[in-house]
Amino acid sequence: MSDDARPTKIQKVAPYKLHYWPAIPGRGEFIRLAFEYTGTAYVEANDPKTLLATIGDASKTGGAPPAFAPPALELPNGYVLSQTPAILNYLAPRLGLAGWDKATSLDADTKDQIQAAVNGVVLTALDLNNETHDTHHPLAVMKYYEEQKEAAAEKSKDFRASRMPKFFAHFENVLASNPKKDAAGGPFLVSDRTTTADLVVFHLIEGLTFAFPKRVKKLQDSGDYPLLFKLHERVKNEETIKAYQASDRHLPFSQGIFRYYEELDLED
Amino acid sequence: MSDDARPTKIQKVAPYKLHYWPAIPGRGEFIRLAFEYTGTAYVEANDPKTLLATIGDASKTGGAPPAFAPPALELPNGYVLSQTPAILNYLAPRLGLAGWDKATSLDADTKDQIQAAVNGVVLTALDLNNETHDTHHPLAVMKYYEEQKEAAAEKSKDFRASRMPKFFAHFENVLASNPKKDAAGGPFLVSDRTTTADLVVFHLIEGLTFAFPKRVKKLQDSGDYPLLFKLHERVKNEETIKAYQASDRHLPFSQGIFRYYEELDLED
Repeated sequence: MSDDARPTKIQKVAPYKLHYWPAIPGRGEFIRLAFEYTGTAYVEANDPKTLLATIGDASKTGGAPPAFAPPALELPNGYVLSQTPAILNYLAPRLGLAGWDKATSLDADTKDQIQAAVNGVVLTALDLNNETHDTHHPLAVMKYYEEQKEAAAEKSKDFRASRMPKFFAHFENVLASNPKKDAAGGPFLVSDRTTTADLVVFHLIEGLTFAFPKRVKKLQDSGDYPLLFKLHERVKNEETIKAYQASDRHLPFSQGIFRYYEELDLED
Repeated sequence: MSDDARPTKIQKVAPYKLHYWPAIPGRGEFIRLAFEYTGTAYVEANDPKTLLATIGDASKTGGAPPAFAPPALELPNGYVLSQTPAILNYLAPRLGLAGWDKATSLDADTKDQIQAAVNGVVLTALDLNNETHDTHHPLAVMKYYEEQKEAAAEKSKDFRASRMPKFFAHFENVLASNPKKDAAGGPFLVSDRTTTADLVVFHLIEGLTFAFPKRVKKLQDSGDYPLLFKLHERVKNEETIKAYQASDRHLPFSQGIFRYYEELDLED
Protein backbone atom coordinates (compact mmCIF):
# COMPACT_ATOMS: atom_id res chain seq x y z
CA MET A 1 0.00 0.00 0.00
CA SER A 2 1.43 3.40 -0.95
CA ASP A 3 1.74 6.02 1.77
CA ASP A 4 -1.01 8.26 0.48
CA ALA A 5 -3.39 5.30 0.32
CA ARG A 6 -3.03 4.64 4.04
CA PRO A 7 -6.19 5.19 6.03
CA THR A 8 -6.17 8.43 7.98
CA LYS A 9 -7.77 6.70 10.95
CA ILE A 10 -6.25 3.64 12.57
CA GLN A 11 -8.51 0.72 11.70
CA LYS A 12 -9.79 -0.87 14.88
CA VAL A 13 -12.19 -3.29 13.26
CA ALA A 14 -11.31 -6.85 14.23
CA PRO A 15 -11.04 -9.27 11.34
CA TYR A 16 -13.31 -12.27 11.01
CA LYS A 17 -12.30 -15.05 13.42
CA LEU A 18 -12.81 -18.66 12.36
CA HIS A 19 -13.26 -21.14 15.20
CA TYR A 20 -12.34 -24.60 13.98
CA TRP A 21 -10.34 -27.73 14.77
CA PRO A 22 -6.59 -27.57 14.14
CA ALA A 23 -4.68 -29.63 11.58
CA ILE A 24 -7.48 -30.70 9.21
CA PRO A 25 -9.12 -28.84 6.33
CA GLY A 26 -12.53 -30.17 7.40
CA ARG A 27 -15.64 -28.06 7.07
CA GLY A 28 -13.59 -25.01 8.06
CA GLU A 29 -11.94 -25.17 4.65
CA PHE A 30 -15.10 -23.99 2.90
CA ILE A 31 -14.97 -20.79 4.96
CA ARG A 32 -11.22 -20.39 4.51
CA LEU A 33 -11.59 -20.64 0.73
CA ALA A 34 -14.10 -17.78 0.70
CA PHE A 35 -11.62 -15.60 2.60
CA GLU A 36 -8.57 -16.74 0.66
CA TYR A 37 -10.15 -16.41 -2.76
CA THR A 38 -11.27 -12.87 -2.03
CA GLY A 39 -8.17 -11.79 -0.08
CA THR A 40 -10.25 -11.11 3.03
CA ALA A 41 -8.42 -10.83 6.37
CA TYR A 42 -9.24 -13.52 8.93
CA VAL A 43 -7.71 -15.13 11.96
CA GLU A 44 -8.29 -18.57 13.41
CA ALA A 45 -8.93 -19.94 16.90
CA ASN A 46 -7.97 -23.60 16.89
CA ASP A 47 -7.37 -24.72 20.46
CA PRO A 48 -9.13 -28.08 20.71
CA LYS A 49 -9.27 -27.76 24.51
CA THR A 50 -11.41 -24.61 24.41
CA LEU A 51 -13.15 -24.80 21.04
CA LEU A 52 -16.43 -26.49 21.94
CA ALA A 53 -16.70 -24.72 25.30
CA THR A 54 -16.31 -21.37 23.55
CA ILE A 55 -18.72 -21.70 20.66
CA GLY A 56 -21.26 -23.71 22.68
CA ASP A 57 -21.48 -21.20 25.52
CA ALA A 58 -24.09 -18.49 24.97
CA SER A 59 -22.14 -16.08 27.21
CA LYS A 60 -19.37 -16.12 24.58
CA THR A 61 -21.33 -15.87 21.33
CA GLY A 62 -22.25 -12.20 21.47
CA GLY A 63 -25.98 -12.71 21.70
CA ALA A 64 -26.09 -15.42 19.05
CA PRO A 65 -27.42 -18.91 19.82
CA PRO A 66 -24.68 -21.26 21.03
CA ALA A 67 -23.25 -23.42 18.24
CA PHE A 68 -23.80 -27.16 17.86
CA ALA A 69 -20.41 -27.81 16.24
CA PRO A 70 -17.56 -26.02 14.49
CA PRO A 71 -16.94 -24.26 12.19
CA ALA A 72 -18.18 -21.08 13.83
CA LEU A 73 -17.42 -17.59 12.60
CA GLU A 74 -16.97 -14.72 15.02
CA LEU A 75 -17.95 -11.49 13.27
CA PRO A 76 -16.05 -8.27 13.97
CA ASN A 77 -18.79 -7.26 16.45
CA GLY A 78 -18.45 -10.52 18.42
CA TYR A 79 -21.63 -12.20 17.11
CA VAL A 80 -20.87 -15.87 16.42
CA LEU A 81 -22.48 -17.62 13.46
CA SER A 82 -22.39 -21.37 12.99
CA GLN A 83 -23.26 -24.01 10.38
CA THR A 84 -21.08 -23.92 7.26
CA PRO A 85 -23.87 -23.03 4.79
CA ALA A 86 -25.26 -20.29 7.08
CA ILE A 87 -21.79 -18.76 7.42
CA LEU A 88 -21.18 -18.91 3.68
CA ASN A 89 -24.57 -17.41 2.93
CA TYR A 90 -23.89 -14.54 5.33
CA LEU A 91 -20.45 -13.90 3.84
CA ALA A 92 -21.39 -14.31 0.17
CA PRO A 93 -22.84 -10.84 -0.50
CA ARG A 94 -20.20 -9.18 1.70
CA LEU A 95 -17.31 -10.86 -0.15
CA GLY A 96 -18.73 -10.53 -3.65
CA LEU A 97 -19.47 -14.27 -3.82
CA ALA A 98 -23.27 -14.13 -4.10
CA GLY A 99 -23.40 -13.97 -7.89
CA TRP A 100 -23.59 -10.20 -8.36
CA ASP A 101 -21.48 -7.15 -7.82
CA LYS A 102 -22.14 -4.84 -4.87
CA ALA A 103 -22.62 -2.00 -7.37
CA THR A 104 -25.26 -3.93 -9.31
CA SER A 105 -28.47 -2.27 -10.35
CA LEU A 106 -30.42 -5.50 -9.78
CA ASP A 107 -33.36 -5.08 -7.44
CA ALA A 108 -33.26 -6.59 -3.95
CA ASP A 109 -35.59 -9.51 -4.75
CA THR A 110 -33.55 -10.54 -7.77
CA LYS A 111 -30.32 -10.37 -5.76
CA ASP A 112 -31.90 -12.50 -3.03
CA GLN A 113 -33.04 -15.05 -5.60
CA ILE A 114 -29.59 -15.39 -7.16
CA GLN A 115 -28.03 -15.63 -3.71
CA ALA A 116 -30.58 -18.33 -2.78
CA ALA A 117 -29.65 -20.24 -5.95
CA VAL A 118 -25.98 -20.07 -4.95
CA ASN A 119 -26.97 -21.21 -1.47
CA GLY A 120 -28.89 -24.15 -2.97
CA VAL A 121 -25.90 -25.38 -4.96
CA VAL A 122 -23.67 -24.93 -1.89
CA LEU A 123 -26.10 -27.03 0.15
CA THR A 124 -26.18 -29.81 -2.43
CA ALA A 125 -22.38 -29.87 -2.52
CA LEU A 126 -22.24 -29.96 1.27
CA ASP A 127 -24.68 -32.88 1.22
CA LEU A 128 -22.11 -34.71 -0.89
CA ASN A 129 -19.47 -33.68 1.64
CA ASN A 130 -21.56 -35.23 4.43
CA GLU A 131 -22.10 -38.41 2.42
CA THR A 132 -18.34 -38.64 1.87
CA HIS A 133 -17.84 -38.51 5.63
CA ASP A 134 -20.38 -41.27 6.08
CA THR A 135 -18.49 -43.61 3.73
CA HIS A 136 -15.97 -44.22 6.53
CA HIS A 137 -18.41 -43.60 9.40
CA PRO A 138 -21.75 -45.07 8.30
CA LEU A 139 -22.93 -46.33 11.69
CA ALA A 140 -21.61 -44.12 14.48
CA VAL A 141 -19.68 -40.87 14.22
CA MET A 142 -17.96 -41.34 17.59
CA LYS A 143 -16.67 -44.86 16.87
CA TYR A 144 -13.49 -45.64 14.94
CA TYR A 145 -13.53 -46.54 11.28
CA GLU A 146 -12.05 -49.89 12.27
CA GLU A 147 -15.21 -50.63 14.26
CA GLN A 148 -17.46 -50.17 11.20
CA LYS A 149 -15.27 -51.35 8.32
CA GLU A 150 -17.75 -53.82 6.91
CA ALA A 151 -20.56 -51.29 6.74
CA ALA A 152 -18.10 -48.70 5.38
CA ALA A 153 -17.20 -51.03 2.53
CA GLU A 154 -20.86 -51.44 1.62
CA LYS A 155 -21.62 -47.72 1.99
CA SER A 156 -18.59 -46.84 -0.15
CA LYS A 157 -19.62 -49.27 -2.86
CA ASP A 158 -22.96 -47.49 -3.17
CA PHE A 159 -21.20 -44.12 -2.95
CA ARG A 160 -18.84 -44.95 -5.82
CA ALA A 161 -21.47 -46.59 -8.03
CA SER A 162 -24.50 -44.38 -7.38
CA ARG A 163 -23.91 -41.28 -5.36
CA MET A 164 -20.75 -39.86 -6.95
CA PRO A 165 -22.12 -40.19 -10.51
CA LYS A 166 -25.48 -38.77 -9.41
CA PHE A 167 -23.95 -35.68 -7.82
CA PHE A 168 -21.39 -35.24 -10.62
CA ALA A 169 -24.17 -35.44 -13.21
CA HIS A 170 -26.13 -32.83 -11.28
CA PHE A 171 -23.23 -30.38 -11.15
CA GLU A 172 -22.57 -31.00 -14.86
CA ASN A 173 -26.26 -30.27 -15.53
CA VAL A 174 -26.06 -27.03 -13.52
CA LEU A 175 -22.90 -25.96 -15.38
CA ALA A 176 -24.30 -26.91 -18.78
CA SER A 177 -27.43 -24.86 -18.09
CA ASN A 178 -25.37 -21.71 -17.45
CA PRO A 179 -24.09 -20.10 -20.67
CA LYS A 180 -21.80 -17.69 -18.82
CA LYS A 181 -18.06 -18.45 -19.05
CA ASP A 182 -14.87 -16.58 -18.22
CA ALA A 183 -12.52 -15.29 -20.94
CA ALA A 184 -10.76 -18.64 -21.14
CA GLY A 185 -14.03 -20.57 -21.36
CA GLY A 186 -14.05 -21.55 -17.69
CA PRO A 187 -17.55 -22.26 -16.38
CA PHE A 188 -19.47 -20.91 -13.39
CA LEU A 189 -22.16 -22.76 -11.47
CA VAL A 190 -24.34 -19.68 -10.96
CA SER A 191 -24.25 -16.28 -12.69
CA ASP A 192 -21.22 -14.85 -14.50
CA ARG A 193 -18.65 -14.96 -11.71
CA THR A 194 -17.13 -17.12 -9.00
CA THR A 195 -19.49 -17.76 -6.10
CA THR A 196 -19.29 -19.76 -2.88
CA ALA A 197 -20.85 -22.60 -4.92
CA ASP A 198 -17.78 -22.78 -7.19
CA LEU A 199 -15.43 -22.75 -4.21
CA VAL A 200 -17.31 -25.49 -2.37
CA VAL A 201 -17.54 -27.76 -5.42
CA PHE A 202 -13.86 -27.09 -6.16
CA HIS A 203 -12.90 -28.31 -2.68
CA LEU A 204 -15.10 -31.37 -3.02
CA ILE A 205 -13.28 -32.40 -6.19
CA GLU A 206 -9.98 -31.85 -4.38
CA GLY A 207 -11.15 -33.98 -1.46
CA LEU A 208 -12.71 -36.75 -3.50
CA THR A 209 -9.55 -36.97 -5.60
CA PHE A 210 -7.66 -37.57 -2.34
CA ALA A 211 -10.15 -40.06 -0.90
CA PHE A 212 -11.25 -41.90 -4.04
CA PRO A 213 -8.43 -41.28 -6.57
CA LYS A 214 -9.19 -44.27 -8.77
CA ARG A 215 -12.92 -43.54 -8.90
CA VAL A 216 -12.46 -39.84 -9.65
CA LYS A 217 -10.05 -40.72 -12.48
CA LYS A 218 -12.56 -43.20 -13.86
CA LEU A 219 -15.33 -40.60 -13.78
CA GLN A 220 -13.08 -38.00 -15.35
CA ASP A 221 -11.94 -40.42 -18.06
CA SER A 222 -15.57 -41.25 -18.85
CA GLY A 223 -15.86 -37.81 -20.43
CA ASP A 224 -19.33 -37.37 -18.93
CA TYR A 225 -18.40 -34.43 -16.71
CA PRO A 226 -16.16 -32.12 -18.75
CA LEU A 227 -17.51 -28.87 -17.32
CA LEU A 228 -17.21 -30.06 -13.73
CA PHE A 229 -13.52 -30.84 -14.13
CA LYS A 230 -13.01 -27.62 -16.06
CA LEU A 231 -14.59 -25.73 -13.17
CA HIS A 232 -12.18 -27.42 -10.79
CA GLU A 233 -9.25 -26.45 -13.01
CA ARG A 234 -10.47 -22.87 -13.36
CA VAL A 235 -10.68 -22.33 -9.60
CA LYS A 236 -7.38 -24.13 -8.95
CA ASN A 237 -5.65 -21.70 -11.34
CA GLU A 238 -7.05 -18.54 -9.78
CA GLU A 239 -4.08 -16.51 -8.51
CA THR A 240 -5.34 -16.25 -4.92
CA ILE A 241 -6.11 -19.96 -4.75
CA LYS A 242 -2.68 -20.87 -6.15
CA ALA A 243 -1.03 -18.60 -3.58
CA TYR A 244 -3.12 -20.11 -0.80
CA GLN A 245 -2.38 -23.68 -1.79
CA ALA A 246 1.35 -22.86 -1.88
CA SER A 247 1.22 -21.29 1.61
CA ASP A 248 1.62 -22.93 4.99
CA ARG A 249 -1.95 -21.90 5.82
CA HIS A 250 -3.14 -24.67 3.51
CA LEU A 251 -3.58 -27.94 5.38
CA PRO A 252 -3.18 -31.31 3.70
CA PHE A 253 -5.95 -33.91 3.82
CA SER A 254 -5.38 -36.57 6.46
CA GLN A 255 -7.95 -38.09 8.84
CA GLY A 256 -10.80 -35.63 8.48
CA ILE A 257 -13.85 -35.84 6.23
CA PHE A 258 -11.78 -36.88 3.21
CA ARG A 259 -9.68 -39.95 4.06
CA TYR A 260 -7.88 -42.38 1.84
CA TYR A 261 -8.57 -46.03 2.51
CA GLU A 262 -7.43 -48.19 -0.37
CA GLU A 263 -10.13 -50.76 0.41
CA LEU A 264 -12.88 -48.15 -0.04
CA ASP A 265 -11.68 -47.05 -3.49
CA LEU A 266 -12.17 -50.34 -5.32
CA GLU A 267 -12.34 -50.59 -9.09
CA ASP A 268 -15.75 -52.32 -9.31
CA MET B 1 -63.03 -8.99 2.27
CA SER B 2 -65.50 -6.08 2.14
CA ASP B 3 -66.40 -4.67 -1.23
CA ASP B 4 -64.53 -1.41 -0.82
CA ALA B 5 -61.36 -3.27 0.19
CA ARG B 6 -61.28 -5.16 -3.09
CA PRO B 7 -58.28 -4.43 -5.27
CA THR B 8 -59.11 -2.19 -8.19
CA LYS B 9 -56.94 -4.34 -10.48
CA ILE B 10 -57.38 -8.07 -10.76
CA GLN B 11 -54.45 -9.66 -8.98
CA LYS B 12 -52.50 -11.82 -11.41
CA VAL B 13 -49.66 -12.70 -9.12
CA ALA B 14 -49.33 -16.48 -8.86
CA PRO B 15 -48.97 -17.92 -5.37
CA TYR B 16 -45.87 -19.84 -4.32
CA LYS B 17 -45.84 -23.32 -5.86
CA LEU B 18 -44.26 -26.17 -3.89
CA HIS B 19 -42.92 -29.05 -5.99
CA TYR B 20 -42.75 -32.16 -3.84
CA TRP B 21 -43.63 -35.85 -3.67
CA PRO B 22 -47.24 -36.74 -2.94
CA ALA B 23 -48.53 -38.53 0.17
CA ILE B 24 -45.64 -37.98 2.61
CA PRO B 25 -44.80 -34.99 4.81
CA GLY B 26 -41.09 -35.42 3.99
CA ARG B 27 -38.84 -32.40 3.60
CA GLY B 28 -41.70 -30.55 1.91
CA GLU B 29 -43.37 -30.31 5.31
CA PHE B 30 -40.83 -27.76 6.55
CA ILE B 31 -41.87 -25.45 3.71
CA ARG B 32 -45.57 -26.14 4.20
CA LEU B 33 -45.31 -25.25 7.88
CA ALA B 34 -43.84 -21.84 7.03
CA PHE B 35 -46.79 -21.15 4.73
CA GLU B 36 -49.41 -22.64 7.04
CA TYR B 37 -48.18 -20.92 10.18
CA THR B 38 -48.21 -17.53 8.46
CA GLY B 39 -51.39 -18.07 6.44
CA THR B 40 -49.50 -17.61 3.16
CA ALA B 41 -51.18 -18.83 -0.03
CA TYR B 42 -49.41 -21.71 -1.80
CA VAL B 43 -50.23 -24.47 -4.22
CA GLU B 44 -48.53 -27.81 -4.72
CA ALA B 45 -47.33 -29.78 -7.75
CA ASN B 46 -47.08 -33.42 -6.69
CA ASP B 47 -47.13 -35.58 -9.81
CA PRO B 48 -44.39 -38.16 -9.23
CA LYS B 49 -44.19 -38.83 -12.98
CA THR B 50 -43.16 -35.27 -13.84
CA LEU B 51 -41.61 -33.98 -10.61
CA LEU B 52 -37.92 -34.72 -11.18
CA ALA B 53 -38.07 -33.92 -14.89
CA THR B 54 -39.58 -30.53 -14.10
CA ILE B 55 -37.32 -29.27 -11.33
CA GLY B 56 -34.18 -30.84 -12.84
CA ASP B 57 -34.66 -29.24 -16.28
CA ALA B 58 -33.06 -25.80 -16.59
CA SER B 59 -35.59 -24.83 -19.28
CA LYS B 60 -38.31 -25.06 -16.63
CA THR B 61 -36.69 -23.34 -13.65
CA GLY B 62 -36.99 -19.74 -14.80
CA GLY B 63 -33.26 -19.09 -15.06
CA ALA B 64 -32.41 -20.80 -11.78
CA PRO B 65 -30.01 -23.75 -11.65
CA PRO B 66 -31.82 -27.08 -12.07
CA ALA B 67 -32.60 -28.76 -8.74
CA PHE B 68 -30.92 -31.89 -7.39
CA ALA B 69 -33.99 -33.12 -5.52
CA PRO B 70 -37.33 -31.93 -4.17
CA PRO B 71 -38.58 -29.91 -2.40
CA ALA B 72 -38.34 -27.06 -4.89
CA LEU B 73 -40.23 -23.81 -4.62
CA GLU B 74 -41.44 -21.99 -7.68
CA LEU B 75 -41.63 -18.28 -6.91
CA PRO B 76 -44.43 -16.14 -8.36
CA ASN B 77 -42.04 -14.99 -11.15
CA GLY B 78 -41.23 -18.60 -12.15
CA TYR B 79 -37.75 -18.76 -10.60
CA VAL B 80 -37.33 -22.17 -8.90
CA LEU B 81 -35.39 -22.45 -5.65
CA SER B 82 -34.30 -25.76 -4.20
CA GLN B 83 -32.75 -27.19 -1.02
CA THR B 84 -34.99 -26.96 2.05
CA PRO B 85 -32.73 -24.61 4.07
CA ALA B 86 -32.20 -22.29 1.07
CA ILE B 87 -35.96 -22.09 0.50
CA LEU B 88 -36.65 -21.42 4.17
CA ASN B 89 -33.94 -18.77 4.34
CA TYR B 90 -35.40 -17.02 1.29
CA LEU B 91 -38.92 -17.14 2.71
CA ALA B 92 -38.06 -16.23 6.30
CA PRO B 93 -37.81 -12.43 5.95
CA ARG B 94 -40.75 -12.36 3.50
CA LEU B 95 -43.03 -14.30 5.86
CA GLY B 96 -41.94 -12.61 9.08
CA LEU B 97 -40.09 -15.74 10.22
CA ALA B 98 -36.54 -14.33 10.28
CA GLY B 99 -36.60 -13.12 13.87
CA TRP B 100 -37.66 -9.53 13.30
CA ASP B 101 -40.60 -7.54 12.06
CA LYS B 102 -40.59 -6.03 8.58
CA ALA B 103 -41.12 -2.63 10.19
CA THR B 104 -38.12 -3.02 12.46
CA SER B 105 -35.64 -0.20 12.87
CA LEU B 106 -32.74 -2.69 13.10
CA ASP B 107 -29.98 -1.98 10.60
CA ALA B 108 -29.45 -4.33 7.66
CA ASP B 109 -26.36 -6.04 9.12
CA THR B 110 -28.10 -6.81 12.40
CA LYS B 111 -31.11 -8.20 10.55
CA ASP B 112 -28.82 -10.39 8.42
CA GLN B 113 -27.05 -11.66 11.53
CA ILE B 114 -30.28 -12.63 13.28
CA GLN B 115 -31.52 -14.28 10.09
CA ALA B 116 -28.21 -16.17 9.81
CA ALA B 117 -28.63 -17.35 13.41
CA VAL B 118 -32.11 -18.63 12.57
CA ASN B 119 -30.65 -20.29 9.47
CA GLY B 120 -27.97 -21.95 11.62
CA VAL B 121 -30.52 -23.48 14.00
CA VAL B 122 -32.63 -24.61 11.03
CA LEU B 123 -29.58 -26.30 9.51
CA THR B 124 -28.73 -28.11 12.72
CA ALA B 125 -32.31 -29.34 13.01
CA LEU B 126 -32.25 -30.49 9.39
CA ASP B 127 -29.01 -32.36 10.11
CA LEU B 128 -30.96 -34.27 12.75
CA ASN B 129 -33.68 -34.85 10.15
CA ASN B 130 -31.08 -36.35 7.80
CA GLU B 131 -29.65 -38.53 10.55
CA THR B 132 -33.14 -39.77 11.32
CA HIS B 133 -33.51 -40.83 7.69
CA ASP B 134 -30.20 -42.66 7.89
CA THR B 135 -31.35 -44.76 10.85
CA HIS B 136 -33.42 -46.85 8.43
CA HIS B 137 -31.17 -46.28 5.39
CA PRO B 138 -27.61 -46.27 6.71
CA LEU B 139 -25.92 -47.94 3.72
CA ALA B 140 -27.75 -47.10 0.51
CA VAL B 141 -30.64 -44.70 -0.02
CA MET B 142 -31.95 -46.58 -3.07
CA LYS B 143 -32.09 -49.97 -1.38
CA TYR B 144 -34.94 -51.21 0.81
CA TYR B 145 -34.79 -51.01 4.59
CA GLU B 146 -35.08 -54.79 4.59
CA GLU B 147 -31.75 -55.00 2.75
CA GLN B 148 -29.91 -53.04 5.46
CA LYS B 149 -31.74 -54.04 8.65
CA GLU B 150 -28.66 -55.12 10.57
CA ALA B 151 -26.80 -51.88 9.92
CA ALA B 152 -30.03 -49.95 10.63
CA ALA B 153 -30.26 -51.60 14.04
CA GLU B 154 -26.71 -50.56 14.87
CA LYS B 155 -27.16 -47.04 13.50
CA SER B 156 -30.40 -46.63 15.44
CA LYS B 157 -28.78 -47.78 18.67
CA ASP B 158 -26.19 -45.01 18.33
CA PHE B 159 -28.91 -42.57 17.29
CA ARG B 160 -31.01 -43.31 20.39
CA ALA B 161 -28.11 -43.38 22.83
CA SER B 162 -25.91 -40.57 21.48
CA ARG B 163 -27.36 -38.47 18.72
CA MET B 164 -30.87 -37.77 20.02
CA PRO B 165 -29.64 -36.68 23.47
CA LYS B 166 -26.86 -34.61 21.90
CA PHE B 167 -29.22 -32.71 19.60
CA PHE B 168 -31.91 -32.38 22.27
CA ALA B 169 -29.32 -30.98 24.70
CA HIS B 170 -28.21 -28.51 22.06
CA PHE B 171 -31.72 -27.23 21.41
CA GLU B 172 -32.32 -27.02 25.16
CA ASN B 173 -29.10 -24.99 25.46
CA VAL B 174 -30.21 -22.65 22.67
CA LEU B 175 -33.64 -22.19 24.30
CA ALA B 176 -32.15 -21.69 27.78
CA SER B 177 -29.83 -19.01 26.43
CA ASN B 178 -32.73 -16.98 25.05
CA PRO B 179 -34.61 -15.07 27.77
CA LYS B 180 -37.46 -14.10 25.45
CA LYS B 181 -40.77 -15.90 26.05
CA ASP B 182 -44.34 -15.45 24.88
CA ALA B 183 -47.10 -14.27 27.25
CA ALA B 184 -47.71 -17.85 28.43
CA GLY B 185 -44.00 -18.51 29.02
CA GLY B 186 -43.51 -20.37 25.75
CA PRO B 187 -39.92 -20.25 24.53
CA PHE B 188 -38.39 -19.20 21.20
CA LEU B 189 -35.16 -20.56 19.73
CA VAL B 190 -34.06 -17.19 18.31
CA SER B 191 -35.30 -13.67 19.07
CA ASP B 192 -38.71 -12.83 20.56
CA ARG B 193 -40.98 -14.49 18.01
CA THR B 194 -41.62 -17.67 16.05
CA THR B 195 -39.05 -18.28 13.32
CA THR B 196 -38.46 -21.03 10.79
CA ALA B 197 -36.18 -22.57 13.45
CA ASP B 198 -39.12 -23.11 15.80
CA LEU B 199 -41.23 -24.62 13.03
CA VAL B 200 -38.48 -27.02 11.92
CA VAL B 201 -37.69 -28.19 15.46
CA PHE B 202 -41.43 -28.55 16.13
CA HIS B 203 -41.79 -30.89 13.17
CA LEU B 204 -38.75 -32.89 14.23
CA ILE B 205 -40.29 -33.55 17.62
CA GLU B 206 -43.51 -34.59 15.87
CA GLY B 207 -41.59 -36.93 13.59
CA LEU B 208 -39.31 -38.41 16.23
CA THR B 209 -42.36 -39.05 18.44
CA PHE B 210 -43.80 -41.09 15.56
CA ALA B 211 -40.58 -42.94 14.72
CA PHE B 212 -39.11 -43.43 18.21
CA PRO B 213 -42.07 -43.08 20.59
CA LYS B 214 -40.51 -44.97 23.47
CA ARG B 215 -37.22 -43.08 23.22
CA VAL B 216 -38.86 -39.66 22.99
CA LYS B 217 -41.00 -40.48 26.04
CA LYS B 218 -37.88 -41.57 27.93
CA LEU B 219 -36.09 -38.35 27.03
CA GLN B 220 -39.11 -36.27 27.94
CA ASP B 221 -39.53 -38.11 31.25
CA SER B 222 -35.87 -37.50 32.08
CA GLY B 223 -36.76 -33.85 32.67
CA ASP B 224 -33.55 -32.76 30.94
CA TYR B 225 -35.26 -30.96 28.05
CA PRO B 226 -38.22 -29.03 29.51
CA LEU B 227 -37.90 -26.02 27.21
CA LEU B 228 -37.65 -28.17 24.08
CA PHE B 229 -40.91 -29.94 24.85
CA LYS B 230 -42.50 -26.64 25.85
CA LEU B 231 -41.48 -25.20 22.48
CA HIS B 232 -43.13 -28.15 20.75
CA GLU B 233 -46.30 -27.60 22.77
CA ARG B 234 -46.29 -23.85 22.09
CA VAL B 235 -46.10 -24.30 18.32
CA LYS B 236 -48.64 -27.15 18.34
CA ASN B 237 -51.14 -24.87 20.04
CA GLU B 238 -50.75 -21.96 17.64
CA GLU B 239 -54.14 -21.39 15.99
CA THR B 240 -52.86 -21.71 12.42
CA ILE B 241 -50.97 -24.90 13.22
CA LYS B 242 -53.98 -26.43 14.96
CA ALA B 243 -56.15 -25.58 11.95
CA TYR B 244 -53.56 -27.04 9.59
CA GLN B 245 -53.18 -30.26 11.53
CA ALA B 246 -56.97 -30.67 11.57
CA SER B 247 -57.20 -30.13 7.80
CA ASP B 248 -56.90 -32.66 4.99
CA ARG B 249 -53.80 -30.82 3.75
CA HIS B 250 -51.91 -32.33 6.67
CA LEU B 251 -50.37 -35.68 5.72
CA PRO B 252 -49.77 -38.42 8.26
CA PHE B 253 -46.31 -39.93 8.73
CA SER B 254 -45.87 -43.24 6.93
CA GLN B 255 -42.87 -44.46 4.93
CA GLY B 256 -40.94 -41.22 4.48
CA ILE B 257 -38.10 -39.84 6.58
CA PHE B 258 -39.87 -40.63 9.84
CA ARG B 259 -40.85 -44.30 9.94
CA TYR B 260 -41.89 -46.49 12.80
CA TYR B 261 -40.05 -49.79 13.11
CA GLU B 262 -40.57 -51.35 16.52
CA GLU B 263 -37.15 -53.03 16.33
CA LEU B 264 -35.39 -49.65 15.94
CA ASP B 265 -37.03 -48.13 19.04
CA LEU B 266 -35.62 -50.47 21.65
CA GLU B 267 -35.53 -49.66 25.34
CA ASP B 268 -31.76 -50.05 25.85
